[in-house]
Amino acid sequence: MFKKIGAVALSTGLVLSAMSVPVFAEKPESPGKGNGNGNGGKKIDNIIYMIPDGFSGDYASNYRVYKGEDAVWDAHLKGMFTTNSANADVTDSAAAGTAMASGVKTNNGVIGLDPEGNDLTTILDASEEAGKSSGLVATSTITHATPASFATSVESRNNETEIARQYISSEVDVLLGGGKNMFLPEADGGNQEELNLIEQAQDAGFTYVETRDELQNNADIEVVEGERLLGLFADDALSPELHRDQSVEPSLAEMTEASIEVLEQDKDGFFLMVEGSQIDWAGHANDPAWAMSDVAAFEEAVETAIDFAKQDGKTLVIVAGDHDTGGMTTGSGAYSGLNADILNQVTATGDFMATQLNEDRSNTREIVEQYTHLTITEEEVQSIEDASDTALAINRVVSDHAGIGWTSTNHTGADIPVYAYGPQAEKFAGFYDNTALPQIMADVLRVSLDN
Amino acid sequence: MFKKIGAVALSTGLVLSAMSVPVFAEKPESPGKGNGNGNGGKKIDNIIYMIPDGFSGDYASNYRVYKGEDAVWDAHLKGMFTTNSANADVTDSAAAGTAMASGVKTNNGVIGLDPEGNDLTTILDASEEAGKSSGLVATSTITHATPASFATSVESRNNETEIARQYISSEVDVLLGGGKNMFLPEADGGNQEELNLIEQAQDAGFTYVETRDELQNNADIEVVEGERLLGLFADDALSPELHRDQSVEPSLAEMTEASIEVLEQDKDGFFLMVEGSQIDWAGHANDPAWAMSDVAAFEEAVETAIDFAKQDGKTLVIVAGDHDTGGMTTGSGAYSGLNADILNQVTATGDFMATQLNEDRSNTREIVEQYTHLTITEEEVQSIEDASDTALAINRVVSDHAGIGWTSTNHTGADIPVYAYGPQAEKFAGFYDNTALPQIMADVLRVSLDN
Repeated sequence: MFKKIGAVALSTGLVLSAMSVPVFAEKPESPGKGNGNGNGGKKIDNIIYMIPDGFSGDYASNYRVYKGEDAVWDAHLKGMFTTNSANADVTDSAAAGTAMASGVKTNNGVIGLDPEGNDLTTILDASEEAGKSSGLVATSTITHATPASFATSVESRNNETEIARQYISSEVDVLLGGGKNMFLPEADGGNQEELNLIEQAQDAGFTYVETRDELQNNADIEVVEGERLLGLFADDALSPELHRDQSVEPSLAEMTEASIEVLEQDKDGFFLMVEGSQIDWAGHANDPAWAMSDVAAFEEAVETAIDFAKQDGKTLVIVAGDHDTGGMTTGSGAYSGLNADILNQVTATGDFMATQLNEDRSNTREIVEQYTHLTITEEEVQSIEDASDTALAINRVVSDHAGIGWTSTNHTGADIPVYAYGPQAEKFAGFYDNTALPQIMADVLRVSLDN
Repeated sequence: MFKKIGAVALSTGLVLSAMSVPVFAEKPESPGKGNGNGNGGKKIDNIIYMIPDGFSGDYASNYRVYKGEDAVWDAHLKGMFTTNSANADVTDSAAAGTAMASGVKTNNGVIGLDPEGNDLTTILDASEEAGKSSGLVATSTITHATPASFATSVESRNNETEIARQYISSEVDVLLGGGKNMFLPEADGGNQEELNLIEQAQDAGFTYVETRDELQNNADIEVVEGERLLGLFADDALSPELHRDQSVEPSLAEMTEASIEVLEQDKDGFFLMVEGSQIDWAGHANDPAWAMSDVAAFEEAVETAIDFAKQDGKTLVIVAGDHDTGGMTTGSGAYSGLNADILNQVTATGDFMATQLNEDRSNTREIVEQYTHLTITEEEVQSIEDASDTALAINRVVSDHAGIGWTSTNHTGADIPVYAYGPQAEKFAGFYDNTALPQIMADVLRVSLDN
């Protein structure tokens, strides 16, 4: 809502006084009565679109075992959707993000453009056009495929510096995640000017923060006065939740809360996308503890969003993964039953444990048992010592103990569950394609995607 | 509805004149308006409960690829449910069937009894109590766990002869499936009397048929006059759809159609359970062609049920698997993409192909290529020749080509999708436990489960 400089300021006087999950007064959920194609039903000002990258139904069921009770989203299940891209049965996160942002299928790797290269209007663009403010939050670099799909257009998702550049000239008001290096690219032997996109962002109205404390102290910026907020809390991606230094990096819930507190100043409403980016990476690594702990961090963010929506009454919260990663199974492996709860005792990713092994791997049992609190068999030790990919071998042993199976280290084509909370949530009921998600959002927000 | 002998006969004059899927005139779907706990909404006389044993979301997505378009159920997706049994995270079909029939969790292996051994009222019992007729159809023995859960009570699902005996003294009107041997058990060295439960069934009012033609010629029995129908079309289970002799065995759709034509004579309505039993067995075998072809046969049966429901207007059709089997993934394996469509070319189960191999397995390539119409690599031939479980090795090669992964040869704990068509179908929306399914059915039928 950058272009709305000069609009009447409606500072609510709210400042971010605490980073913990807020306790809002509850109102009963009031779904609209509309069920057809019109946009009947209670008015919606705000959408919070929560994307757990790589999260499918089996993540949902394993997470329930890990947590020991239903997740906050379970009760809000509305339907499932398909995810194929324009040029592949199995999507990547760029094509999935583009479909989920614009309602148009594109080719894997492409962001914000259709397969012919035409620029696409996203639900964030349409919200800005309607006078709303907007924000993007991720635990990857903020220039990664999923957030980028909402506000930029590039032929290749790998061009993260171009994505950073486009963010600055876009109308996005809040950007929080990792990726300092993408804003400060190294000069490339004369082929590239030295760039400082952080300074350019500051020139374009962004307040820049890079620690949890700085975020806490600057979440009172005046978005309706054209002030914007850029938070880059790591050179590259943020840390997996298992390894996050809480004194430096804010949690996903804290970034979500800060974004809401900035954006809710806009009386025209806001659009916020929040990605739990690393669930996907944990899936690629077949790392069940990384996956479940990052789902838990994502759930805290969803709780923050739903608590706000309950208080606000005009906010719709959508939770929808972009694809499955890893072909996870709930209940498989050498040990019987569903044992994902044992993953609460794991304190490091498989990647980290692998870096702690001696060159001769003589400390395999010691390291794995130290960080997993499991007792592993001699055969399991051997399987790790013999493996070419030590981290994967560790993750397979831990998965076996947890009763979690995997069929792939890539994305799969599984249908993905969608959850919705708030007014008109029932519009997300049923079975459809991922392209329907932003179209339903545009319908309930009474804005046009026009693609 | 056996006890209703003497009630006014309402023969509709319908006879089963053709075994093909019928073409009924379509009426628009008219879901009721009720959404709460009451049973507001359009009146429901009949429920057809379609259970694809072992079928989960990944079966649904792979089947869409196999078929090349949406399945008949996809558009009717309403929600998902959990499946754990009273004593295990991962259910078997007896405990799952009991929960889905009575709304009460029991221990694995137990049918129709709670964990303390108390007899349970099922949705079939409650329908009979309300004066409706009832039927059970399966492609397993009709005395197998899932159908048995609706009308019998036994401590062990393996006691199929006791299940047959209880069927005869139950009020079930139509029983169609396999399992002649369970009705004609061999005498057991003096410990057991020689039994002919088929004769006993005939004495109890059952017309007995054992071929597709006999079914066709006897589907005009007068259920409202106390006539009943027992069809046992094989000694044990029916054939996998890939190997069915269409001149002898009726298809699942044909058994469904015959059942509906018998049961719809009852003006008080009917309850019919139809199981696609062998999807589960295909999952245990990790056999993707068996799985998909039996899902296709099941889909034809669902089409028959929905076509009837469209014409009738007072019939609710529910499609819900009892658990996942095999931890199937959509998109995994040595070849990229989703290629389940190649399974249309496979003409035999892996079990059958394994029986066709020479003792020295020298004809492995010939047999596998003959029945799969795939070209397999030398490494794939070798993997089959070296395997201790030849059928499983064949199935893994075929799965790789189809882009289908598996993590288990057992059941898993995945959440299961539920589909509903007809009046008040929206009552099945959301996320719940498998025990909720018969409770919602009792609610919309205005009958009581009373457990």
